[in-house]
Formats: sequence, structure tokens, C-alpha cells
Amino acid sequence: MADQDRKGPGRPRSARVDEAIVEAVYDLLSAGQSADAISIEAIAAKAGVGKATVYRRWPNKEALFIDAVTMMKGSLPEPRGESVRDDLVMLLQAMKNKRMEQYGRVTACLLPELVKSAEMHRVYQAAIEPRRNVMRQVLQRGIESGELRADLDVELTLLMLSGPNIAQNMLKWNPNVPSEGFAEKLVDAVLRGIAA
Amino acid sequence: MADQDRKGPGRPRSARVDEAIVEAVYDLLSAGQSADAISIEAIAAKAGVGKATVYRRWPNKEALFIDAVTMMKGSLPEPRGESVRDDLVMLLQAMKNKRMEQYGRVTACLLPELVKSAEMHRVYQAAIEPRRNVMRQVLQRGIESGELRADLDVELTLLMLSGPNIAQNMLKWNPNVPSEGFAEKLVDAVLRGIAA
Repeated sequence: MADQDRKGPGRPRSARVDEAIVEAVYDLLSAGQSADAISIEAIAAKAGVGKATVYRRWPNKEALFIDAVTMMKGSLPEPRGESVRDDLVMLLQAMKNKRMEQYGRVTACLLPELVKSAEMHRVYQAAIEPRRNVMRQVLQRGIESGELRADLDVELTLLMLSGPNIAQNMLKWNPNVPSEGFAEKLVDAVLRGIAA
Repeated sequence: MADQDRKGPGRPRSARVDEAIVEAVYDLLSAGQSADAISIEAIAAKAGVGKATVYRRWPNKEALFIDAVTMMKGSLPEPRGESVRDDLVMLLQAMKNKRMEQYGRVTACLLPELVKSAEMHRVYQAAIEPRRNVMRQVLQRGIESGELRADLDVELTLLMLSGPNIAQNMLKWNPNVPSEGFAEKLVDAVLRGIAA
């Protein structure tokens, strides 16, 4: 699927139909329905198309969900490469875009699906790996520039930056942490450490 | 419910029945069923009791799930109070107990429920707050002892320690981070920071 076909008012009708169907998946998941409980009929009805229109585009529900996860994750803006701190803040902020609350909920609703299906877990990993890799490159550059420790555990650091984000977006794990300024505070705290 | 009644071979039959019913909830959730899709009938069948036996103990499915979440979280061991680093490692390791993989999956399966129900989110928060508070007290003690920064953001730090744990337990978010030695590595990295 060519993503550039999906943008702007001039995109072809078929791309708009694809979008409506994927949006219907998000809407139903966001409303709290499990992936299991959502039928192609319900998706088609929500999108305002016929069931056959869905099946012409995706052979089954799993294939549709794969595309939905991949499109949901989207791409990240290019890091500027001037300051590791600023790039990390920018990347965390970009993950928390205007639809993040909805998407965080969607991810939460996909989890039971991920538990059940090794294929869905691979799909999820495939969808997040390009995003993880953008951050990985920022960290590698920081080691080379001397902004970060030479002995940095890059994979653990990815998790230290993303894990708190995930826990807040999906679970609102700690209601005492304000979302205002969250990315800056997290990056600065991870950079300097908590030891005296 | 008196938790001490539930341990050992001498506990009363009614406690064993309670346990079997709650275990049935875990089993069904772990198998990937959404909380929505699980019926009292299915729980009773899995536990090997009659439906009436479940209803005698819990008025409805939500009440049963509340007890299941609370019992799942359990209590944490008492920090020794000698080293903040060692206490934090101990607490993170205790969260990753022998049943953590199952429980991580259970939490994942409860998420759609949490999204839908403000009451379930309150239940989840009520279940985790005592555990969060044990860690909070360790951090406060570390500030007082001078082991941690005087200006520490305690609430953010709770999230920095727990978020990566949650993301790995529930999503295996970064398969490149080994679970061997994870608690030590995370605590040490959070303590010293990633900046050069």
C-alpha cells in the first residue's frame, strides 16, 4: 500500500475506503471491544461499506489487523542530529501524538490478541522495530559524540525511555505523574540518573 | 478475606474453593480470553464447582474480578533498609515472581476491561498502590540518607523503575533485553544515568 496515496483531499476513492475500514477497527477497539469480539460485519457496518468490500481488500480479519497496527504506528520525524537530549525528547513527544490516547487504548485492546497469537506478536514487533531503530541510532550517535556513556547498554536504554511511556499511555500507571512536560522530564531524569 | 487462611494444607475447604475459582479466572484470562467473553458458567466449570457456588461467594463477575486482581498483586517483601540499590533490586525481582509471566498475561487480558470501566481502573489502582507505596518509601529513605538526589522526582522515578518492567512483562517490548539480571541492570542504569 502506497501511503502517499492516502493523504490530501485528492486521494483516490479506494484509499479513502481503506482508511474508513481501518478507522472502524480503531473505533471499535477504542470502545473497549476485544479483537476477538469484533466481526468483519461490525467493521463493515461502522465503516459504512459492505462486507464484500472489506473482503476484497483483506482476506481475513487477521490481515486487516496487521495493516491496522502497522498504519497506527506510522513513521517518526527525522531526528535533527544536533543534541541527543533534544532528539530523544522529540521522539518521545512524537510517540505521544494527538491520537496517542486513542492508540494507546487500541494497543491495550490488541494485547489479548498478542498473547494468543505468535503471529500477532511478530506483527507488533515488525511495526515497532523501525521506530525503535530511529531511537537506537540517536543513542549510537550520542555514544560516538561523547554525549552518552561509552559503555551504554543501548537496548536497555530503549526500554528505559519507552517503558514509562507505554505504562502511562496504556494504563495511566501512575496518576501522580503529570503528562505536561513528561517527555522532557523523563529524558532528563534518564540522562542524569537518580543517584546523588 | 483473611489471606492467612489460604495457605498450607490445613486451610478450610471454603478457602480452597475460593482459590480454585480465582485460579479459574487466571487460567481463562491467561489463555487469551477477554474478561468480557468469560462467563460465570465457564469459570465454575473450570473450577469444578457449580454456578451457585460462585454466586454464593461473589454477587457478580466484576466483584470476582476485583478480588482476582487484588489477590494477583499480593504483597511485597519488606525492604531491608540497608541499601536503596539493593532494596529496589529486591522489589523489582519480587514483582517478577515465578507466576509473573502468567500474571503479566492476565494483566494484558484485563486491559480492555480497564479501558471500558472506570471502576476497574480504580480497582487496578487500588491493587497496585500499596506496592507502589513500598517503593515510594524506599526512594524517600534514599533521599534522606543521601543515597539519592535531594531534588528527586519520586513519582517519576516510580514510573522509571516500573514502566520498563511492565513493558517487558506484558509485551516483551524489546526482545533484545535479556531477562537474566534485568532488575540489577535496570536499577543500576536508573541510578547512574546514561549521560557521559
